[in-house]
Amino acid sequence: MSDKKYKVKILPNNIETLAEENDTLKKVFTDNNISFEFPCGGLGLCKQCQVKIKRDSGEEERVFACQFKIKEDLLVEITKKEQQHRILSEGLEREVLLDPLVKKVHRKLPQPTLSDNRDDWSRLVERRGIRPSLKIAQELPKKIRENNFDVTIVISDDEIIAIEDKNTQDMLLGMAFDIGTTTVAGYLMDLKSGKELTKVSTLNPQTKYGADVISRINFAETDAGLERLHGEIVQAINELIAEAVKEAGFKTSDVYAISVCGNTAMHHLFLNIKPGSLASTPYVPVVTEHIVADAQDLGIKINPTGKVFILPNIAGFVGGDIVAGALTIEIDKAEKLKLFIDIGTNGEIVLGTKDNSLSCSTAAGPAFEGVEITCGMRGASGAIDHVHIDNELSYTVIDDGLPYGIAGSGLVDIIAELLKAGIIDQNGRILRPEEVNNPIGKKYLDRITTIEGVLSFLIEDKTATGRPVYITQKDIREFQLAKGAIAAGIEVLLKTYGAKADDIDEVFLAGAFGNYLDYKSACRVGLIPQELENKIKGIGNSAGAGAKLFLLSEKERNRARDIASKIKYVELSAREDFRDAFFNKINF
Amino acid sequence: MSDKKYKVKILPNNIETLAEENDTLKKVFTDNNISFEFPCGGLGLCKQCQVKIKRDSGEEERVFACQFKIKEDLLVEITKKEQQHRILSEGLEREVLLDPLVKKVHRKLPQPTLSDNRDDWSRLVERRGIRPSLKIAQELPKKIRENNFDVTIVISDDEIIAIEDKNTQDMLLGMAFDIGTTTVAGYLMDLKSGKELTKVSTLNPQTKYGADVISRINFAETDAGLERLHGEIVQAINELIAEAVKEAGFKTSDVYAISVCGNTAMHHLFLNIKPGSLASTPYVPVVTEHIVADAQDLGIKINPTGKVFILPNIAGFVGGDIVAGALTIEIDKAEKLKLFIDIGTNGEIVLGTKDNSLSCSTAAGPAFEGVEITCGMRGASGAIDHVHIDNELSYTVIDDGLPYGIAGSGLVDIIAELLKAGIIDQNGRILRPEEVNNPIGKKYLDRITTIEGVLSFLIEDKTATGRPVYITQKDIREFQLAKGAIAAGIEVLLKTYGAKADDIDEVFLAGAFGNYLDYKSACRVGLIPQELENKIKGIGNSAGAGAKLFLLSEKERNRARDIASKIKYVELSAREDFRDAFFNKINF
Repeated sequence: MSDKKYKVKILPNNIETLAEENDTLKKVFTDNNISFEFPCGGLGLCKQCQVKIKRDSGEEERVFACQFKIKEDLLVEITKKEQQHRILSEGLEREVLLDPLVKKVHRKLPQPTLSDNRDDWSRLVERRGIRPSLKIAQELPKKIRENNFDVTIVISDDEIIAIEDKNTQDMLLGMAFDIGTTTVAGYLMDLKSGKELTKVSTLNPQTKYGADVISRINFAETDAGLERLHGEIVQAINELIAEAVKEAGFKTSDVYAISVCGNTAMHHLFLNIKPGSLASTPYVPVVTEHIVADAQDLGIKINPTGKVFILPNIAGFVGGDIVAGALTIEIDKAEKLKLFIDIGTNGEIVLGTKDNSLSCSTAAGPAFEGVEITCGMRGASGAIDHVHIDNELSYTVIDDGLPYGIAGSGLVDIIAELLKAGIIDQNGRILRPEEVNNPIGKKYLDRITTIEGVLSFLIEDKTATGRPVYITQKDIREFQLAKGAIAAGIEVLLKTYGAKADDIDEVFLAGAFGNYLDYKSACRVGLIPQELENKIKGIGNSAGAGAKLFLLSEKERNRARDIASKIKYVELSAREDFRDAFFNKINF
Repeated sequence: MSDKKYKVKILPNNIETLAEENDTLKKVFTDNNISFEFPCGGLGLCKQCQVKIKRDSGEEERVFACQFKIKEDLLVEITKKEQQHRILSEGLEREVLLDPLVKKVHRKLPQPTLSDNRDDWSRLVERRGIRPSLKIAQELPKKIRENNFDVTIVISDDEIIAIEDKNTQDMLLGMAFDIGTTTVAGYLMDLKSGKELTKVSTLNPQTKYGADVISRINFAETDAGLERLHGEIVQAINELIAEAVKEAGFKTSDVYAISVCGNTAMHHLFLNIKPGSLASTPYVPVVTEHIVADAQDLGIKINPTGKVFILPNIAGFVGGDIVAGALTIEIDKAEKLKLFIDIGTNGEIVLGTKDNSLSCSTAAGPAFEGVEITCGMRGASGAIDHVHIDNELSYTVIDDGLPYGIAGSGLVDIIAELLKAGIIDQNGRILRPEEVNNPIGKKYLDRITTIEGVLSFLIEDKTATGRPVYITQKDIREFQLAKGAIAAGIEVLLKTYGAKADDIDEVFLAGAFGNYLDYKSACRVGLIPQELENKIKGIGNSAGAGAKLFLLSEKERNRARDIASKIKYVELSAREDFRDAFFNKINF
């Protein structure tokens, strides 16, 4: 180890720093947070990182920042036009340094001569640093000679995974996937521009083996159960890939990488990993760290040499989808306290700043997704998404027309409005008509009625199905369990963190539900603490957005790994105070 | 990057040094060449690298050197019993730090609990640093639970390649192979002790498609030629593995790694890489850097998860066998000038010190191996290996008995002795009986005779075959071409290096031929410069010895890579001065 250090001054930034002997300029730029793009990842291949060295003698020299080693005091000038950042158009918009997990570099190789008789591999990679693989070495001599030494190499994770004929540098696709328990969404991305080309989605076909995570885990423990669940999700993803590339006018072989996030159970099932240990105490996952796999080993039909990048998990019930969300909201840069809530079958919650963050998962049940609710449905076309009860009862329907049922956001509104109108009491009981005192409530006594033997409140009898849309006492009980779980989760995280609701700077609600939700109603029913009403922001599918970030940028991938390893997991099932909070929060 | 440095004093070595903040003690030990073994390679797994930290307060703490990060001035005491070095028993004997390319670590894992609910993978590897692979993640949950959390992990190159039931830490085998153009040798090694268990060898079955490298390269260019040559050598190696493990009482699945070296053509054929570019100018290899491949991808029958490590090459005609030789003679540590000669069908030569070294290959032809020599044979049982001509003609036969033919070393002796006896002149011509003037020579005039129309010198007519053993004028011409090529190669390397023969400190002769050779004869015939006669050392199969070093020690592997990248290759075919030297050296 050398102890020598040299002064390096960098223009036009005007940064002065000390560097170790033999450090590269790349290292100096990175250590000093100088924004500078290395398209080939610093492998000395792309020749894009040229800078100017100025010597005291007046001499100037152009060198490649990724390769140049410091052996003297230096004045370095970054003369390239400003290195570009790209903007991501989904989820929370923000700038991303485009540096995808798979890269292409076009190489016009000098022909071998007696004075330049390097081996084919060294000629291809020019500098050491990329280890030769057997497969590429086997195809190399034919490939470069058939193409007259003019080829494009495809690089993933410091490994050459393919060699293509001539210059195909501008054609490079990837797909980001969010595997939800219910829905699978895929985004076809142009890895050269960072642009989304098309979006596709489908129901998770595993649903037929169980609507919720636990029933699928149990099915996976049966004979051939795991293989079947794994096969179903792989097939669904393959169909989405085929659909997306067809729609955008490409071939599946143009896709070299997919990134995948999902909750921990979806993660295990996708990877053909036994998920049994997730379902019983102490609920340990098999693996939380991010995984890079060969597409072929998983049966994923993209380019046969392509790669699959799977986001890391945090714990058994806080998966890569939540890491993706935390990455989307940039919790690793948050100076002030942020609350992230992803409400689905489980309600996963993250609370924290860049210095300290906590996560938990609450078994909220599927009420917010319209499941187990008599007239419930997903937030899709025909769903009542908002309801207002005042002098008259009004509602809106997604895509207009007659309603089919009630979406999660509609359910929250109905309960909030019925509370305000005094038709539901603080314990969640629907009052009998004779018990209603509230003047607004009194206008709707005829809607309080018994349907199929259960006390209910009628919303609409002119519907798309011909059957009335209404909410029952049982629906309200389901809702109370769900919102109680989430509210208790928030309370326990706040307590563990040592903060009050008031200390929270922003609340991010992930998922479609978060976008449709009326925040006033959400606070009124106690789903979210009242003091946060004006701090709530719906951020849509943050899992998908995070998967895209992961795919587009090595830096984002490193951030995701860092986030996953730093967010502490709080196991609620082990805590008395969670149970206490839950019973406190069940009522309104 | 932190600029902070701390003083670290290490006992009992009494070394004081400065370390960067957050450096590990492992790094400090390595940087300061403190001999200390990290059995798991510093991954924090094996818990074998405990040292004692002593604080000014009198406080003492035991820490693991591979994990402990420096954040203050430290006094460190190495209290472990002295870390052991093993001695290699073949080739040049020397000490090696045993740190094989595949390692095993026994792990008794703590069972998961609610307060320790890490994922299985983190529990297994304990600290980050080993990336999870899909395959291992898939088998992990079942494997550790079936074994009650008591397993042994097999690690190669910072990757877990297998998990075995319970504690199998002490059972770990590897095999080192030297693939020669003519012979394949394999050494079964116990990677836990560094001991050689058994040695096996066989003829290279590719011989039936051509005795020499060029004819095999040409055959490989024909339809299915490459597959056939590749298949032949893989099958031969598989048979050697099966033979060796059977002999030593093990199973092929106990073998987790093989290391392989050979000349560049053998390297390409073994790896199923088209060798065509080696055979025509500018003679470029496809790959010179070392390759790590999955045994399964090459059809090598060891443990299905095992690895194949292939030594790096230097150039088209200076392969991994020469890198192995240069590693064996430790050219990377040589203060004084060393000459290494591996005489086979090609004569590869390395000349240099630790600071600067050169290599070349000369097409010597197979004369030294007894091929193309009328009564020539390999240096095996029944071969005349030494001849002395004085008042009487005497010779020795390998394993005694009647001779079958003449080995390379015998050929050198015969020519040296016939020169001394004045029966061959300086131009290599066998004198007719009437031309012989030398008084010793005159005793043997009846042996100068025409056999099958060619002027010859009879060595013995009482032979094992019943046919006489003799040397012909044509044999002497073949020999002159061979020795001229090697002598010219040495001369050109010396000239390129800027040294004289006298500057050479030691000459190493590799291969069986080098062991049998009479060095006085070798110098008298001009194969090796006269002034080096007393500096010559036969080192046996240095290729095999190097392959063993490569297999046994990560450090030796790094040295081999370094050697391969630093030895400059001198292409003789492009040089006038080589042709001139060759014509000068043909005569005696």
